Amino acid sequence: MADIPPILSGVYCAVLTPMKADLTPDDKLMVRHCKWLLDQGCDGLSILGTTGEANSLCMKERIRTMDSLVEAGIDPARLMPGTGCCALTDTCIQTGRAMELGVGGVLMLPPFYYKNVSDDGLFASYSEVIQRVGSDRLRIYLYHFPQMSAVPISLSLIERLVTAYPDTVVGMKDSSGDLDNMLTVQKAFPDFAVFTGWDHLLKPLLAAGGAGCITAVANIAAPLLRRIMDGAPDADAAHDRIDAVRQAITARPLIPGLKEVMARHDGNPGWRFMRPPMVAVDDATGDGLMADIAATGFEIPAV
Amino acid sequence: MADIPPILSGVYCAVLTPMKADLTPDDKLMVRHCKWLLDQGCDGLSILGTTGEANSLCMKERIRTMDSLVEAGIDPARLMPGTGCCALTDTCIQTGRAMELGVGGVLMLPPFYYKNVSDDGLFASYSEVIQRVGSDRLRIYLYHFPQMSAVPISLSLIERLVTAYPDTVVGMKDSSGDLDNMLTVQKAFPDFAVFTGWDHLLKPLLAAGGAGCITAVANIAAPLLRRIMDGAPDADAAHDRIDAVRQAITARPLIPGLKEVMARHDGNPGWRFMRPPMVAVDDATGDGLMADIAATGFEIPAV
Repeated sequence: MADIPPILSGVYCAVLTPMKADLTPDDKLMVRHCKWLLDQGCDGLSILGTTGEANSLCMKERIRTMDSLVEAGIDPARLMPGTGCCALTDTCIQTGRAMELGVGGVLMLPPFYYKNVSDDGLFASYSEVIQRVGSDRLRIYLYHFPQMSAVPISLSLIERLVTAYPDTVVGMKDSSGDLDNMLTVQKAFPDFAVFTGWDHLLKPLLAAGGAGCITAVANIAAPLLRRIMDGAPDADAAHDRIDAVRQAITARPLIPGLKEVMARHDGNPGWRFMRPPMVAVDDATGDGLMADIAATGFEIPAV
Repeated sequence: MADIPPILSGVYCAVLTPMKADLTPDDKLMVRHCKWLLDQGCDGLSILGTTGEANSLCMKERIRTMDSLVEAGIDPARLMPGTGCCALTDTCIQTGRAMELGVGGVLMLPPFYYKNVSDDGLFASYSEVIQRVGSDRLRIYLYHFPQMSAVPISLSLIERLVTAYPDTVVGMKDSSGDLDNMLTVQKAFPDFAVFTGWDHLLKPLLAAGGAGCITAVANIAAPLLRRIMDGAPDADAAHDRIDAVRQAITARPLIPGLKEVMARHDGNPGWRFMRPPMVAVDDATGDGLMADIAATGFEIPAV
């Protein structure tokens, strides 16, 4: 049995899930992509999150994706899979498997179908998962992404969870884009590991004692985040540059745009496969995206 | 192989899913509840929808729930299970099983994790499911519930789907509460079977050629909806009364409130089990709810 994982920090990539023509995950390309990301200085890989189209995959596909990375020799301690599903039992199944694999932590969405639910209900959700999984190795990073889940994680919910489960609920990813919220959480819970979901907020979050970032743009620009994280001499320039890359990416549909960039950069059109409701971008959008990224001066590392 | 199902109409109940103490579906109580609802004049049962906490159940639990009703002798043609999941593959698995069972139709949410997705993406989602399920017996009722799914189904999406799949995409449930939207859809597509998710809109929708209703309140007050549907001599009184019952119910949390009413009416405290993020109402809320329902003059049929 692996040791209890440390509290995580650093640069995490919200990893894309490459797919085959039949829209099943392309495990081989996924392994290659993940190894490439680690080679670029990512501390870890947040697989099967929003960017990874995890909610478009069934449980068997999610588990196969986790398993295949570990089978391919990727250190499970560097994985932070998304395991929060709508269904309590799905969340428990995937989180349980993640524990068996020995992952460093899990990124857990609240159940996100029902809206305007009470903090009592969300506390009960996390609590029930923690008790059913029943592992002292479980390290949960709460996933706050109100624009997508439409189920925000409030400060008072965090307080209840860290009070009840101080060794289990140890951090969060905040994808709201609201720096004030991240700073408020970090100030209220200094030992809580707050990760930002947005590249341009890594620098100010670190200055306030934050843990790091988990971002989609890291799929193509992890070296810039690495320099910010390390406080390298050119960290300020890296900050400005990744903000420009981020703006180029987020001016288009995020997942289709990133997959298009990978398809062109990698010379592998298979990167363009994605599950509905995502749809591939058209050629003109791809042209504009590549031109805007080039204009930032950033060169995507060779595959 | 069963015949191709007719286009459905009438009073459908959005059936609660009773659960055991371990929060697994209580198949025995579910069968009893469903038979009781049919005895009260429901034309059919929309199991595993929002009210049925389906998105809190994993695929194995959803399939077991469908199977158990058919095994218990309930006519599958009277079932309209919810089968729309976030994941394409989950939607296909459950819809495929529903076809094997011979259900009358399926109520299909769009994939609801990703927000602000394009109509192209939603069209691709439904299209991919239809092609993968590949059954000429498939009758899809689209599920428009923007307040909960946060992924609305637009008029132009309906038009594209009925044009591409006229024998498959045959109707919708509109839970928006927006009568104008229902009337607009019904007028634009006269053969399309529009069901309302709200009891008090059944009467005006029927007057405009609508198909019927699929409501949560039908779990306790189906006879009133039956009278409205049949245009009984006391249909207007039934309309006023169910509107009062609906207001009593929706003044409290919907699913917990309905389960509390059933627990008290049925004398079975097991009805109070529900999955987080739903939480049972407290005694005072239950008292108020029962008093408000009693004040409407409606008596819930004996179990």
